[in-house]
Amino acid sequence: MNQSTKADHPRATNRSRPHSLAIPHQEQQADRPPHSYERWLIGKLLHLAGSPPLCFRLWNGETINTDGVTAKYTLQLSDPKALYQLVGNPNLAFGDLYSSGRLEVEGSLPDLMAALYRAVQDARERWPRWLEALWRNHSPRSTSVSEARDNIHHHYDLGNDFYSLWLDKAEMQYTCAYYEEAGLSLEQAQLAKLEHVCRKLRLKPGQTVVEAGCGWGGLARYMAREHGVKVHAYNISKEQIEFARAEARRQNLDHLINYVEDDYRNISGQYDAFVSVGMLEHVGKDNFDELAQVIKRALKPEGMALLHSIGRNRPMLMNAWIEKRIFPGAYPPSIGEFMGICESGEFSVLDVENLRLHYARTLEDWMSRFQEHESEVVEMYGEEFNRAWRMYLAGSIAAFQAGALQLFQVVFTHGQNNNLLLNRKHLYTTPAAPEAV
Amino acid sequence: MNQSTKADHPRATNRSRPHSLAIPHQEQQADRPPHSYERWLIGKLLHLAGSPPLCFRLWNGETINTDGVTAKYTLQLSDPKALYQLVGNPNLAFGDLYSSGRLEVEGSLPDLMAALYRAVQDARERWPRWLEALWRNHSPRSTSVSEARDNIHHHYDLGNDFYSLWLDKAEMQYTCAYYEEAGLSLEQAQLAKLEHVCRKLRLKPGQTVVEAGCGWGGLARYMAREHGVKVHAYNISKEQIEFARAEARRQNLDHLINYVEDDYRNISGQYDAFVSVGMLEHVGKDNFDELAQVIKRALKPEGMALLHSIGRNRPMLMNAWIEKRIFPGAYPPSIGEFMGICESGEFSVLDVENLRLHYARTLEDWMSRFQEHESEVVEMYGEEFNRAWRMYLAGSIAAFQAGALQLFQVVFTHGQNNNLLLNRKHLYTTPAAPEAV
Repeated sequence: MNQSTKADHPRATNRSRPHSLAIPHQEQQADRPPHSYERWLIGKLLHLAGSPPLCFRLWNGETINTDGVTAKYTLQLSDPKALYQLVGNPNLAFGDLYSSGRLEVEGSLPDLMAALYRAVQDARERWPRWLEALWRNHSPRSTSVSEARDNIHHHYDLGNDFYSLWLDKAEMQYTCAYYEEAGLSLEQAQLAKLEHVCRKLRLKPGQTVVEAGCGWGGLARYMAREHGVKVHAYNISKEQIEFARAEARRQNLDHLINYVEDDYRNISGQYDAFVSVGMLEHVGKDNFDELAQVIKRALKPEGMALLHSIGRNRPMLMNAWIEKRIFPGAYPPSIGEFMGICESGEFSVLDVENLRLHYARTLEDWMSRFQEHESEVVEMYGEEFNRAWRMYLAGSIAAFQAGALQLFQVVFTHGQNNNLLLNRKHLYTTPAAPEAV
Repeated sequence: MNQSTKADHPRATNRSRPHSLAIPHQEQQADRPPHSYERWLIGKLLHLAGSPPLCFRLWNGETINTDGVTAKYTLQLSDPKALYQLVGNPNLAFGDLYSSGRLEVEGSLPDLMAALYRAVQDARERWPRWLEALWRNHSPRSTSVSEARDNIHHHYDLGNDFYSLWLDKAEMQYTCAYYEEAGLSLEQAQLAKLEHVCRKLRLKPGQTVVEAGCGWGGLARYMAREHGVKVHAYNISKEQIEFARAEARRQNLDHLINYVEDDYRNISGQYDAFVSVGMLEHVGKDNFDELAQVIKRALKPEGMALLHSIGRNRPMLMNAWIEKRIFPGAYPPSIGEFMGICESGEFSVLDVENLRLHYARTLEDWMSRFQEHESEVVEMYGEEFNRAWRMYLAGSIAAFQAGALQLFQVVFTHGQNNNLLLNRKHLYTTPAAPEAV
């Protein structure tokens, strides 16, 4: 297997050894004045990015504004090379330069990122072809059975202790929460999400459920505990499965849950429900048809299926930096591609709900907790890792705020299943969130 | 314009002159015994149709069963030529033979049709290519601006008196009703549909709405009357527009509603909401992108859009007989094609609801009222027309029952609109249907 197909920062399972990103840190700050063509280049860059409300402060302290735009944010570049990296491939370099500290941001990082997303979304329509080609995000790496294991290991096996610093204390949910009412805590909203999913699946005690990509097993435990169903929950992340099993034993739920350390493609048996929350983003477009066949096989004639995934309004590659440094192999499907999965399995789509702004809110809650624990993160994995994750969380808030990413919950069933409800009232008769956690 | 691109039965706007379908009626019934290869052909036909639970009674009284299948329905063929027409192109001939009385059905027509749909759905996977080609439904005719007017005239200008025989008495809705609870009358369910649509659009008094394809204007009147909005409602059916205007005047709503006799492609202005209930089926795949651009232009930055349409689980051409005799130009989009419209307009899909079985129920209510008035229909348009419509209603019930057709309500907005609700509770706080009509 080619190393270059793997993510470029080492997996940080060894907590005692902080690591740094592959890009060398420029220790010496240049203090020469910028060349006139460098000033021109920055002006051009800002123009091509749709004139976002920001200015650049260069290595020598000089500030360059966009003509006629009031700057709400300042990007400070430590050295001339950072400028060239940014111009050459901003999608990738922005995150890398920020992570290594060669790019500093004054002002709210999520707000800056949202402003950038909005400006670029409009501006890219006017980009010439060659620029589109130069700056395009590359195709995500393979998500075949063997590669998928590496991809998932890269992100999800960072260490349960790391994630427990900033995820909810209720069920360690690393997916979009459901803030059905304003003012819910992260814990309430995550439990509301689990309940909302169970209601959409119309779970009844004694039923069987198969879950693809179960994370730390929180949904499986919730379904077993609150709805009395038997769950087979699949995951290829070893650390997560071990955590999930231990937690199920602790809660005396292990007779109801079978956590299987295996790929979703190896799911066997037939179930009353198929559920997958936050796995589809990692499945890869090439495997969508196979996923459809897996679900088709696994679902009883009257079974209900739910896929919960990050998505897009139109097909678009994942941001290069996220795909390279954070989520190897990730590809959020457009709503059309998502429906293509349902068409491929000859399913009937019953319900689609878009929870986009719920994910922005979830990420804000994660980010504020993450920031409370940054010193511990630096201790665990080093400063560059910490800054990379801060950028990842801020950029994700921005992407959901600006509409660059969506969150779709899609409910479907076999095309010939007539055991359907007349309305969706059952989702709303009582609050999905517990009163307090 | 080529006559052959128009539907093949004359428009029945002249009520005093009953008309017959183009296919000549075989007056004389053959009574010769079938040839052995004719018996073989029927066996083959039943096998290729997936061995549905029916038998054939031939022109001489001889009955032919499918091996090992108990027949619940009998198809009686009046003459040998009917058999050859059926074998040559069953999609088209079944409806035509039934309409002209050369094919009679014993047993419930909708149930027979549903059994046929189910059997054929499975069986066609095993058809050889040449058969698929022989029996395939042709592409729907053009739905360009000028052709669309003919297509719509063909069906919707049959005469308001004809439709008022069997549509609801509340608002003359010729689209899927919303039976939010079992036991609702057609009138309640149609009003519930209108209210459900208004709630999904989050209408507020004083807002402006544009409606594409307004039928007899019922939704526009409901929105104006019950939600205090101003409506521009487009339709290219002259008879419907005249009815709509008269009814709005009668209800003193004409200051709030502008019924425009024009194509949806000519919509101008910007509105708080865009709505279209039951028009997309007639738009045609070639015009989906243009429809998306029309909506994009017509919708204010925080505007809400709703498309309500018959659809499919997978792309498939309309049944040849329906497209030729009943709905010229009709093409129900698959859910993926439907989402393609939203992608094309860079919209964000917020909510999809599938009301498939509601349409089966709506059609059952229509059919039972239609059958109460068959003698009047025969009086108006003749026996063949009456039988064709009976077949159309029965076949449509069957298609929705068997999952060959879906009914999607899709809510969407501009990709950058962040004025979104946290949940869909507002659709369910009170019943959408009135207590009594």
